[in-house]
Amino acid sequence: MPGDEQSQFGDNVKIITKPLSLENPVIVEGFPGIGLVGNIASQHLIDELDMEYIGSMESKYFPPIAVLFNGIINMPVRIYESKEYNIITVISDIPIHPTISYEVSKVLMDWAQSINVKEIVSIAGIATMSSDEKVFGAATNDDMLNRIKDHVEIFQVGTISGISGSVMTECFMRNVPAISMLGETNSPNPDPRAAASVIKVLNIIYDLPIDTDNLMEQAEQIEIELQKLAEQVKTSEEGEQPRREFPMYG
Amino acid sequence: MPGDEQSQFGDNVKIITKPLSLENPVIVEGFPGIGLVGNIASQHLIDELDMEYIGSMESKYFPPIAVLFNGIINMPVRIYESKEYNIITVISDIPIHPTISYEVSKVLMDWAQSINVKEIVSIAGIATMSSDEKVFGAATNDDMLNRIKDHVEIFQVGTISGISGSVMTECFMRNVPAISMLGETNSPNPDPRAAASVIKVLNIIYDLPIDTDNLMEQAEQIEIELQKLAEQVKTSEEGEQPRREFPMYG
Amino acid sequence: MPGDEQSQFGDNVKIITKPLSLENPVIVEGFPGIGLVGNIASQHLIDELDMEYIGSMESKYFPPIAVLFNGIINMPVRIYESKEYNIITVISDIPIHPTISYEVSKVLMDWAQSINVKEIVSIAGIATMSSDEKVFGAATNDDMLNRIKDHVEIFQVGTISGISGSVMTECFMRNVPAISMLGETNSPNPDPRAAASVIKVLNIIYDLPIDTDNLMEQAEQIEIELQKLAEQVKTSEEGEQPRREFPMYG
Amino acid sequence: MPGDEQSQFGDNVKIITKPLSLENPVIVEGFPGIGLVGNIASQHLIDELDMEYIGSMESKYFPPIAVLFNGIINMPVRIYESKEYNIITVISDIPIHPTISYEVSKVLMDWAQSINVKEIVSIAGIATMSSDEKVFGAATNDDMLNRIKDHVEIFQVGTISGISGSVMTECFMRNVPAISMLGETNSPNPDPRAAASVIKVLNIIYDLPIDTDNLMEQAEQIEIELQKLAEQVKTSEEGEQPRREFPMYG
Amino acid sequence: MPGDEQSQFGDNVKIITKPLSLENPVIVEGFPGIGLVGNIASQHLIDELDMEYIGSMESKYFPPIAVLFNGIINMPVRIYESKEYNIITVISDIPIHPTISYEVSKVLMDWAQSINVKEIVSIAGIATMSSDEKVFGAATNDDMLNRIKDHVEIFQVGTISGISGSVMTECFMRNVPAISMLGETNSPNPDPRAAASVIKVLNIIYDLPIDTDNLMEQAEQIEIELQKLAEQVKTSEEGEQPRREFPMYG
Repeated sequence: MPGDEQSQFGDNVKIITKPLSLENPVIVEGFPGIGLVGNIASQHLIDELDMEYIGSMESKYFPPIAVLFNGIINMPVRIYESKEYNIITVISDIPIHPTISYEVSKVLMDWAQSINVKEIVSIAGIATMSSDEKVFGAATNDDMLNRIKDHVEIFQVGTISGISGSVMTECFMRNVPAISMLGETNSPNPDPRAAASVIKVLNIIYDLPIDTDNLMEQAEQIEIELQKLAEQVKTSEEGEQPRREFPMYG
Repeated sequence: MPGDEQSQFGDNVKIITKPLSLENPVIVEGFPGIGLVGNIASQHLIDELDMEYIGSMESKYFPPIAVLFNGIINMPVRIYESKEYNIITVISDIPIHPTISYEVSKVLMDWAQSINVKEIVSIAGIATMSSDEKVFGAATNDDMLNRIKDHVEIFQVGTISGISGSVMTECFMRNVPAISMLGETNSPNPDPRAAASVIKVLNIIYDLPIDTDNLMEQAEQIEIELQKLAEQVKTSEEGEQPRREFPMYG
Repeated sequence: MPGDEQSQFGDNVKIITKPLSLENPVIVEGFPGIGLVGNIASQHLIDELDMEYIGSMESKYFPPIAVLFNGIINMPVRIYESKEYNIITVISDIPIHPTISYEVSKVLMDWAQSINVKEIVSIAGIATMSSDEKVFGAATNDDMLNRIKDHVEIFQVGTISGISGSVMTECFMRNVPAISMLGETNSPNPDPRAAASVIKVLNIIYDLPIDTDNLMEQAEQIEIELQKLAEQVKTSEEGEQPRREFPMYG
Repeated sequence: MPGDEQSQFGDNVKIITKPLSLENPVIVEGFPGIGLVGNIASQHLIDELDMEYIGSMESKYFPPIAVLFNGIINMPVRIYESKEYNIITVISDIPIHPTISYEVSKVLMDWAQSINVKEIVSIAGIATMSSDEKVFGAATNDDMLNRIKDHVEIFQVGTISGISGSVMTECFMRNVPAISMLGETNSPNPDPRAAASVIKVLNIIYDLPIDTDNLMEQAEQIEIELQKLAEQVKTSEEGEQPRREFPMYG
Repeated sequence: MPGDEQSQFGDNVKIITKPLSLENPVIVEGFPGIGLVGNIASQHLIDELDMEYIGSMESKYFPPIAVLFNGIINMPVRIYESKEYNIITVISDIPIHPTISYEVSKVLMDWAQSINVKEIVSIAGIATMSSDEKVFGAATNDDMLNRIKDHVEIFQVGTISGISGSVMTECFMRNVPAISMLGETNSPNPDPRAAASVIKVLNIIYDLPIDTDNLMEQAEQIEIELQKLAEQVKTSEEGEQPRREFPMYG
């Protein structure tokens, strides 16, 4: 909370939080990537578990953006905690550029270890051709893999790229137990269905009570809007393209 | 004022001012963005309140530009104060590149806190499809939001990007009260009408007596000139494009 | 192994390993380049000699990627040892950008010398027009050249570029004996045949028992798949290209 | 003079000179910009006042270039003094990139103040649609503006960009009196006429005896050559474009 | 020689050599530029004077490349000495990017002065329209110019750009006598004829016995090959362009 006693980690990438109350929390992270699976799922977790805002990550490398909820300013990368479920969620509304993924994941893990993290859950999307809505899973060690293997499709051979990839390698290097949850998505559009699939697996593994009905409604709403957009594009392409009359400034 | 006793903040971005006389000022900032709403409104404030030049911001990251008023050189990012109204205005004639917004807003806020700022008003434009000339507003906390909520359209959900976005997140992080005033504009051209709308809200909130008539005249003038330009473009497109005969040097 | 007692070299590029047991090892390195000859051959060495994972190289300059084997996370640049054959293999699944080759090879050689390296074998591909499947060889001094000259085609005049080139110049500068093994390849596709040719030479020089049959099977498999792909491309080009209806996100 | 006792200013941008004899000199600077007005006028000043070479500015940010006069090597950015007229001229044959203008003007002004500069004259070109050959003028304070106002067209409102703009803002910030002389030019080609117009104003303000006849001859010569070039271009465009037969190296 | 006692200069650009025996040597440098005149001439000097390898220049800014002679690895920028003729030659097989020319020439000259250099000869190509095979010459002072003026065409007015330009300005600044030898070339292809012309001038000035016959043979060979290539290009353009069937990897 701004103005309160705060702790701060990192240099070019900073994590600033108020004092935390959890002792050995699970940290769930969701950054936007394909299908925005990571941040849709994380935001849903925050909303449904009624998690409390405790701080943010900031960096000179991040794009300059303020996020608004009900007219109040907030940070684009935010941290929340749920005392009831012993979970911390790190959610980002901005994509992390590959050139800073290394530094972001280092600082995130320094901070995670400083608060005695139990384990990490990294949520992201994975593009496939199928529409099975599966969740692919991977882990940093056999114990973690055993915990998820009956609830996900094991991601046997391949690569996880981007910030989710660096968080996982960082966990592997530091021996911090971690699992990767990759929601299958087959379109570049926001995919709340894939996020819902991931949430359902988290419900099982962490014994959470999260309802995913409104994610499914969101998914239907997006599909309807994309359908409309497609029709408009078709229609407008049949007419003439309007000319732009004025020069553009700045 | 150059040559006088000066104080200086920052490293790569510097604020250099003569000693200030205000004790707990409101700081209004306006940087150029869409519709140039921020700097048109700020310049109008400076002119109408007859504010005094007290210093400037400079940086190796800024484009090399000198600004001229009546043949006299000045800086592209300038700072003025009004003792009568207890307001400081920071105005820029140069856009701030996203990669330096973080550093610019850090230095601006370091300086603002060093002079015991009361609150920040960040003026910018916001592109919409409507021509209602509304002002959208946001704030860093509920108190500030309550002060503006009857005079603006609350900006419920969305993002503010660019320097105005970083100034607001910086205020949020430091617990400095701040409001964002976003003048609705529906064209990329300079939009004094949008600036006038913002000024009218400031008149109410800060009990200022600023006339906006000449902004409206400017708006009409710009519209007439753009109309003429559009006609010229049409005409010239009907004729032949002249050939460029000479090679271009440097 | 993560979590164990580890040693670490370098700054922007780091090598992190558990304590090593070998005393004067041969180090084989294979980074991906043309035909992926370097990393196919190195991976085959690791698999067939049943080498043990002992650490990794990491860098903020590397792309953010986690590699998966059977659902378990691993690093993209990995180090393995074979006590039986006194060999260490450094294998990379990511290409090294020319701008960081200098630093990567410096750190690699600092580490190699710190563990008292006997000699270096650098494996890469070389593009030719022929399909002779020869291995070209070069060395940092006459002794090393004499050891390989009956088993390879000496690479008389030319250049070796990329990370393999910097490793070789670095060895030359430090007077660390080194040989370069360049598997001839005539296509940009992964070329297990070229890797097999290199392995056969290593079998002779280092008296190794590595079977290359499954590399040959891989080669055939790749050739069949490329053939299929070529036919599909032809077929699809005869039909109409489908239109993309939706805008792309991120 | 190389080899003599030298003083040196700056770090990334350096000014290296032999000991100077002037005590409170006027410094004239001319860097190449539109119409090359700045360096044509400065070179003419140097030639006509028979100024003595005293040093140079160098920087790792400058393009690598040696300048030749009668077979003798010299620096691309050179400094000359005239004891008779108490003037120092800084002339550049290379354009200064906007990203280093800030640093170049800082070092230039540090050096200028270290030698107790009286005032600065910054010469550049200004593109207009007219062919009046006017000189536009601006100044850092009212005193300087008064000195030039009867001999130039005051540049009322606008911006001066590039190195000339940063030199002027730097003077303004440091309270060093400075005037900007902008020779009107309406073509991108070298414009000795515009340079001559500037020289005529300097003759008045600083009571100099500089003849501008050969600049006018140069202007006529350039105009003739450009006319010829235009005709050749026309002719060659009517024929066929020759094919390039050989691949280009490096 | 690697492994021997070595001295090292510079930081980002390094010169590493074994102890030198010459006391006041002439240093000839040839970097590749237009027509590769600099490095063809330098290599010929090294071969014909049977010069001894004494060290190399390396830098993280150089492209990662190993050079091969008879299967033995060497550095792309090499240094040789001839005790008999008191000459050191610095030859490069890699072009020096303009952004590092400044630093390379600084380090080269620091090293040259540390070994008490007598004078510098910088060899490069110069593009002209003529096929006279002249050598243009320039110098840092009148004494040096007098020594060459009867054997070269004096390069009256103009610029020398690239590494040869920075070496010459660096010599001028440091008062190290230097001459520039620019072999006229009228094609972008390697031009041993231009290199031979330069060698002939060096033979006169430094009383050297270098035969240039095999350079002339090389020139004829290159011309024949380019002629063949031109014919092949013509022929292939008359036929159909083959389609590329497979996607390209990496």
